[in-house]
Amino acid sequence: MAAANSFGKAFIVTTFGESHGRCVGTLIDGCPAGLPLFEGDIQVELDKRVPRKPEITSGRIEKDVVEILSGVFEGHTTGAPICMLVWNREAVSSEYAVIKNLPRPGHADYPAHVKYRGFNDYRGGGRFSGRITVSLVMAGAVAKKLLQLFGVEVLAYTKAIGSVEMKETPTLEQIRKETYKNPVRCPDQAYAELMEKAIIEARREGDSLGGIVECIALNVPVGVGEPVFDALDADIAKAIFAVPAVKGVEFGAGFKVAAMKGSESNDPYATRDGKVITLTNNAGGVLGGLSNGMPIVVRVAIKPTPSIAKKQKTINLSELKDATLQVEGRHDPCIVPKAVPAIESMVAITITDHMIRAGIIPKVLARER
Amino acid sequence: MAAANSFGKAFIVTTFGESHGRCVGTLIDGCPAGLPLFEGDIQVELDKRVPRKPEITSGRIEKDVVEILSGVFEGHTTGAPICMLVWNREAVSSEYAVIKNLPRPGHADYPAHVKYRGFNDYRGGGRFSGRITVSLVMAGAVAKKLLQLFGVEVLAYTKAIGSVEMKETPTLEQIRKETYKNPVRCPDQAYAELMEKAIIEARREGDSLGGIVECIALNVPVGVGEPVFDALDADIAKAIFAVPAVKGVEFGAGFKVAAMKGSESNDPYATRDGKVITLTNNAGGVLGGLSNGMPIVVRVAIKPTPSIAKKQKTINLSELKDATLQVEGRHDPCIVPKAVPAIESMVAITITDHMIRAGIIPKVLARER
Amino acid sequence: MAAANSFGKAFIVTTFGESHGRCVGTLIDGCPAGLPLFEGDIQVELDKRVPRKPEITSGRIEKDVVEILSGVFEGHTTGAPICMLVWNREAVSSEYAVIKNLPRPGHADYPAHVKYRGFNDYRGGGRFSGRITVSLVMAGAVAKKLLQLFGVEVLAYTKAIGSVEMKETPTLEQIRKETYKNPVRCPDQAYAELMEKAIIEARREGDSLGGIVECIALNVPVGVGEPVFDALDADIAKAIFAVPAVKGVEFGAGFKVAAMKGSESNDPYATRDGKVITLTNNAGGVLGGLSNGMPIVVRVAIKPTPSIAKKQKTINLSELKDATLQVEGRHDPCIVPKAVPAIESMVAITITDHMIRAGIIPKVLARER
Amino acid sequence: MAAANSFGKAFIVTTFGESHGRCVGTLIDGCPAGLPLFEGDIQVELDKRVPRKPEITSGRIEKDVVEILSGVFEGHTTGAPICMLVWNREAVSSEYAVIKNLPRPGHADYPAHVKYRGFNDYRGGGRFSGRITVSLVMAGAVAKKLLQLFGVEVLAYTKAIGSVEMKETPTLEQIRKETYKNPVRCPDQAYAELMEKAIIEARREGDSLGGIVECIALNVPVGVGEPVFDALDADIAKAIFAVPAVKGVEFGAGFKVAAMKGSESNDPYATRDGKVITLTNNAGGVLGGLSNGMPIVVRVAIKPTPSIAKKQKTINLSELKDATLQVEGRHDPCIVPKAVPAIESMVAITITDHMIRAGIIPKVLARER
Repeated sequence: MAAANSFGKAFIVTTFGESHGRCVGTLIDGCPAGLPLFEGDIQVELDKRVPRKPEITSGRIEKDVVEILSGVFEGHTTGAPICMLVWNREAVSSEYAVIKNLPRPGHADYPAHVKYRGFNDYRGGGRFSGRITVSLVMAGAVAKKLLQLFGVEVLAYTKAIGSVEMKETPTLEQIRKETYKNPVRCPDQAYAELMEKAIIEARREGDSLGGIVECIALNVPVGVGEPVFDALDADIAKAIFAVPAVKGVEFGAGFKVAAMKGSESNDPYATRDGKVITLTNNAGGVLGGLSNGMPIVVRVAIKPTPSIAKKQKTINLSELKDATLQVEGRHDPCIVPKAVPAIESMVAITITDHMIRAGIIPKVLARER
Repeated sequence: MAAANSFGKAFIVTTFGESHGRCVGTLIDGCPAGLPLFEGDIQVELDKRVPRKPEITSGRIEKDVVEILSGVFEGHTTGAPICMLVWNREAVSSEYAVIKNLPRPGHADYPAHVKYRGFNDYRGGGRFSGRITVSLVMAGAVAKKLLQLFGVEVLAYTKAIGSVEMKETPTLEQIRKETYKNPVRCPDQAYAELMEKAIIEARREGDSLGGIVECIALNVPVGVGEPVFDALDADIAKAIFAVPAVKGVEFGAGFKVAAMKGSESNDPYATRDGKVITLTNNAGGVLGGLSNGMPIVVRVAIKPTPSIAKKQKTINLSELKDATLQVEGRHDPCIVPKAVPAIESMVAITITDHMIRAGIIPKVLARER
Repeated sequence: MAAANSFGKAFIVTTFGESHGRCVGTLIDGCPAGLPLFEGDIQVELDKRVPRKPEITSGRIEKDVVEILSGVFEGHTTGAPICMLVWNREAVSSEYAVIKNLPRPGHADYPAHVKYRGFNDYRGGGRFSGRITVSLVMAGAVAKKLLQLFGVEVLAYTKAIGSVEMKETPTLEQIRKETYKNPVRCPDQAYAELMEKAIIEARREGDSLGGIVECIALNVPVGVGEPVFDALDADIAKAIFAVPAVKGVEFGAGFKVAAMKGSESNDPYATRDGKVITLTNNAGGVLGGLSNGMPIVVRVAIKPTPSIAKKQKTINLSELKDATLQVEGRHDPCIVPKAVPAIESMVAITITDHMIRAGIIPKVLARER
Repeated sequence: MAAANSFGKAFIVTTFGESHGRCVGTLIDGCPAGLPLFEGDIQVELDKRVPRKPEITSGRIEKDVVEILSGVFEGHTTGAPICMLVWNREAVSSEYAVIKNLPRPGHADYPAHVKYRGFNDYRGGGRFSGRITVSLVMAGAVAKKLLQLFGVEVLAYTKAIGSVEMKETPTLEQIRKETYKNPVRCPDQAYAELMEKAIIEARREGDSLGGIVECIALNVPVGVGEPVFDALDADIAKAIFAVPAVKGVEFGAGFKVAAMKGSESNDPYATRDGKVITLTNNAGGVLGGLSNGMPIVVRVAIKPTPSIAKKQKTINLSELKDATLQVEGRHDPCIVPKAVPAIESMVAITITDHMIRAGIIPKVLARER
């Protein structure tokens, strides 16, 4: 059972393709029929993935153009599987020959080599590359289009890069309007500038930075999630770990709950305009694995890009002895900005899957064509 | 697709039962044939679940006695599904009548009521009760027995309760020998005493505490995990969220990676006695969703028990208006000690599932009976 | 991935238990909340399984009494998993010692021994016993109770035993009222007598008989089934093969379509009272894997019970040489009557699963409790 | 849970594409790493699908050219998902406008229209078209290449077309060498000529024919199959129903077992050269859902192509009243020849899936690259 390239039970996303192969693609099975869908809907989201600022990204800036191959007919989804892909154009594989035997610290190179006994496509990290997030974002675009019809909105933004961390909580309006105005995807332009500087500085040193992404899902109906194992937070956590470089996930007050008392962490209920709300949101919108109607708030720790220009200790896999490595190739000095739409996508995909499972999103969206 | 009471793809654990129903049970499908298994193997683990110290637990101390109903023949597993259960004996349901309409803040009461429209068994939290961890621990006992044959060991312990947090990293020997010598499951007896005091103090105030549990898996072979979606860390994270009250999960350096540089967080490779190791373990044993041969280290944030004796704001569900609630019944002032074996079990179950998927654990354990 | 004891994707039935173990059980995950359910509802169906006429059954007539262990609260399903079981009481295992090394022709003994390397519980066939149909019938009882609410009715009956085959097609009324009036489950009492005689005759010779069961599902809404792989006929066929001794499955005109012309086999459409019908039903109610609103008609070939009193050629597994075997123990001379409710159950389970998947059966059955 | 375009649990085949869309494709997740694979391996099997004889096929003869998009690197599978497709070139969609409101009897048009409320791509049958078998054959080609390494061979051939049925059982040699020498895929050239004539005759009448395909799998190891629900025969049956127009499936003696006695249908065991065999094969190689080492023999009933030139009774969907229809477009007068490689593929896919599940086919095929 190595087969593990699908996520979801009702809105099933399967990804394929490699960093330096012919394409990266995604296949959605279970999308309801009747959703208006055009390549432009996907393209808009794809375009958010790559900050077009050379100083803070890898030299490889592809114009990723999506093509829908199936499942859409006369501008609407049909209920059949939707296959979409982006052809790879700019890959320069020669730079990667060196890593075949010298695994990069912090990368999957070594365990992947052992697992697949050398048959994996190691070029550019192959299936373990950040480029795979193209597949996630394409699927996320469809999920977000669906969620929109049901009033659900998913927003992610950069909260910290390296030691630069936003202290204030941004407003929703700020997140919606400001996040994509800068290449680091931070909704506060002052912090954004500091973050950008930190990245440029790290790059100059041949080093890299990590950070924290926060994602918020608004208007998720009460009771979404399927206990005990397919709890909403459980599935969101799992989904987010599909984004490369994630090392931690927390909801609401997160790790801070450890030092709180029950009387502090419990969110008291109240009614507002005939609706049930909680006065605080330490739970991050999830109780017992079920959405409780409050915003779902999840924070994600992203490690610094492992590919750095500095000399590092590694081993030579063919001779099994110590070695040193200086990674060439074009690498992002900070993967956090690219992680923002990928995390947003995975959260949207998970909520979509669960809203279909809960019967809230129907199999066919319109009464009749 | 509400069906969500199974976890795993090869070693599939399905749980059933409610806090105040007839029993809590677990059904394992996919356990290899030929594993020596007796009820005593399960009982040993079950007994670890309940700290037998009335001051820090709920008044309900059941002697949970496991019965194996199927899948074992002449002292060995047969390859058929293993059904096990513990009969409930001590439940006092009358205390729960009040919460039917007054959802407890921090509990699943409210979203569960909405989701199941009042049909859920609300007594003692029903399926959302901490008692459900009995099912997890029974399944974990089988997983641990299997893993033992392959040299894999899984150890969990309490790292923090409330504001008492162990500063030093305990040795493996310490964790193995000291953890269960005190009711809080902390491998350092001095910290354990402080933690116990903190719990008793919180209880006296009618309040409750949370904490942090760390779990370590040793000797997991390199290459376990199935990218891209069934990554080992992704599945461990999902598994752990099945334990009630979990609000965050992090691996290795966890959220600290956000402020590290690549040159700090990358774990350099080296060889030791012909084996590949890393000189640090910021990755927590997982790279690209695959085990890398180093200890798998995961930390879990547990919120304070939501059931507290203090008066709390809630709503009346039948009239949909504000109300106050003072929770009666017997409740743990801190669920962390009970979470320790549950988290250990979920990690063991996930690794077992993946080692079977990877073909490392075979379908039949012995050549011939 | 040996785990294979679950069927369905939305209404998931998992069975456990062995012929001579402590019990046979079933666990349903995904049953909607709000279904009135009592043990009596299950018992009625279980009682249909065993024709209480010693001449045509095995000597082992257990009074199978169902117990519901979970998932039901105050007379309604809760949405949590429903675990049910029947304790085994009458098993006489000593008779089976002989078959440990002498596999019975026509039984799973030999391939099971190879697969599980001797660890399988061989007593009475273990997991391969006809007794396992108790689990199927318990789950089927819940499915039928659910389907009833949506007007769907599933009816099975014996069409042939040995060379005695009903020539006329029975009316629905006849099937509903007459089937269980005789021990062979044939809706025509004249044929039933002939079938009974044939069984008694075969038993006298130390031999056994097979037969044909027909199953009809009425009022299944149009469009149930999920192409391309979870086609309704595909899943019904798979489900039926879980009943021991099945060797063939056909829908509508079945194998007869091979010799028909398109102009004969195509079922012409017409409207009746504003409803679309077909004037014939060669399709057996399924087109392109989707229900078309006509009765779903499926016929099943059942082989003669392999356990016969006659001397048979076999092999000695421990010495791997030719041997002879005369099967002792209590065996049904014809398993067809017991297969009738089991096939009915598997068809009902499959349709229930698909009606939940299609969103026709909701997650919660009533608006509010 | 409409998502249903995947088959298998370890070797997971997902298909996509429509008859008149941009392409038909297949995605294999779980193929072991290290299998030598070239587009030519797939092309060979694809070319078998279309009998290049205009008299007996639809006018639409595409040169289907496969492209592998992912999962193969330097001539070997990598363990990553393999996406393959064939671009559609020759579709003439205009002919299908008429059927949008006039469902063709015997086709999925009507239930599909109801299910998807008019959003399904109806052109050429869309997802319900025989063209979808291109996806099955591409996946089957990979499965067969894998099985070959383990000595397993899967062979299918036409046994009957209309009333012309082979009376003799062909030898394996005959099936291997003669089947594809004629456009009807019958291993006996005399019968083949009669079948061809029958098809031409039916076509002349504006009518169509069905038939019977037999498929044999050789050298499947003993013990393949996962009871109780993923029995080998159960999964093969389900798999075969994915081929359009299938109405029945039987194993070994099939429906004939109904009239046999146990002493006739039981296959006696014997040893030959230290191997266990059965002296007859009424079981068709499967006992209790497990392979028993004998050839797996399955027969499949295929209905006549529903698209016929004769005038037929139908209904007008928009006005819901009776109508008549005369199907235009290019249609096969007999789909049996195209079903042969599709059925062979589905049997090969199922056995591959189960041999991986049983651990007989490993995750990586070679020790090291």
